[in-house]
Amino acid sequence: MCELLGMSANVPTDFCFSFKGLRERGGKTGPHKDGWGVAFYQGKGVTTFKDPNPSYQSEIARLLTDYPIKTTALVAHIRQANSGGIGLENTHPFTRTLWGRYWTYAHNGQLKDFASLPVGQHQVVGQTDSEHAFCYLLHRLEQQFSQAPEDNKAAFEFVASLCPELQALGVFNLLLSDGEYLLAYCSTKLHWVTRRAPFGVARLSDMDLDIDFAKETTAQDVVSVIATMPLTSNEQWQVMQSGQSQLFYLGEAV
Amino acid sequence: MCELLGMSANVPTDFCFSFKGLRERGGKTGPHKDGWGVAFYQGKGVTTFKDPNPSYQSEIARLLTDYPIKTTALVAHIRQANSGGIGLENTHPFTRTLWGRYWTYAHNGQLKDFASLPVGQHQVVGQTDSEHAFCYLLHRLEQQFSQAPEDNKAAFEFVASLCPELQALGVFNLLLSDGEYLLAYCSTKLHWVTRRAPFGVARLSDMDLDIDFAKETTAQDVVSVIATMPLTSNEQWQVMQSGQSQLFYLGEAV
Repeated sequence: MCELLGMSANVPTDFCFSFKGLRERGGKTGPHKDGWGVAFYQGKGVTTFKDPNPSYQSEIARLLTDYPIKTTALVAHIRQANSGGIGLENTHPFTRTLWGRYWTYAHNGQLKDFASLPVGQHQVVGQTDSEHAFCYLLHRLEQQFSQAPEDNKAAFEFVASLCPELQALGVFNLLLSDGEYLLAYCSTKLHWVTRRAPFGVARLSDMDLDIDFAKETTAQDVVSVIATMPLTSNEQWQVMQSGQSQLFYLGEAV
Repeated sequence: MCELLGMSANVPTDFCFSFKGLRERGGKTGPHKDGWGVAFYQGKGVTTFKDPNPSYQSEIARLLTDYPIKTTALVAHIRQANSGGIGLENTHPFTRTLWGRYWTYAHNGQLKDFASLPVGQHQVVGQTDSEHAFCYLLHRLEQQFSQAPEDNKAAFEFVASLCPELQALGVFNLLLSDGEYLLAYCSTKLHWVTRRAPFGVARLSDMDLDIDFAKETTAQDVVSVIATMPLTSNEQWQVMQSGQSQLFYLGEAV
């Protein structure tokens, strides 16, 4: 299994604090040592830092915990390989282009009998069940919408409606973003929290670290964080139920 | 204008030395302060580190000059914006998927009247002439080959045959890779050098730094480096002529 981290914000926000917690699970407090990746958006642009080595030992991952890159949408993943070997082509998140937007996807879980899912022109590069399921979702989106919907909310709602079908093949916890929307689908384990004024102090679960968000934010900031397991020990995280999806738009659950 | 850097190698090779030289040109020894990006392949997988800030000031770029990530194919770019604003969506290199491979592209130059070039399903995300021309090339590839060619060499040769048409719209220096092949097309300025045994000492042009490749390599290693301007002052770089293309495969000019 793997761990997922997502963030959706209404103003560009750095992810150092949350990524610090996730990184610890990549070989230190957790067993997810088979690679890690972080994709973050600025406007419609996205960049993805990936490394097939453990995040806990990665110099690049260390830099990302200290270097305050700001983003409105982030999808991150640390991997414990099951389907597909260890290597960059099997390292999440995966990004593809559709309708003039970058779509970024990460999956936690394992699917059986995925090879027969049609992918159309969205051919798979690596060997994972995860990437195959992503290509399938893009293919279904293209079949459903003959052209880009005016608002991608409809596209995300359609993806959410397909998730139970993938869950039926195994375990399918999902994060998917186009830089504005972020969709979370829970098959077994996913939690989220929205932070807004009045901000307080948050304490990481995986290391001895507090942050006072009141010092880092303005009263208008709204940030939602989605993670496999809560990253902080003193905040009230929403527990998602199996089969439940949650869409976020610029920080807010919608 | 911008600067390009490409590398093709027969064994995974780090790019610290070459990237050190390029990075200096991103705001220090050169004016290319409007972002930078590096895409590197490991097998069929690729990851791209991008930053719309000057490479010379970037902590991430600094890390990449010191951290020996190994790759067999690299495409890097530092940007001086002309078409399209400064931002992640306009920062090279651009990566798209076609026929189950990641294709990575960077462009140096400026094109007029590019907006009418058809792109088919490969819709443009940002505002640059560069990304538009990339989408056009992918569209033409799909039109030319009803399915993936057995060897992508034919695809690269077809792209090379289209480059003069793009050059007719302005300046079109190109790097394009699928992780195995790397195509360079020269419109105004591009140089390359192949390093093989017996390896010697190379001296960077942009800073006071030597490297003794004999200590870093084995007798079988073959590495080609392609750059807008030679990165070293004591090696014999091949000067590409306007309208000339050069394909590389796992280190060798082919």
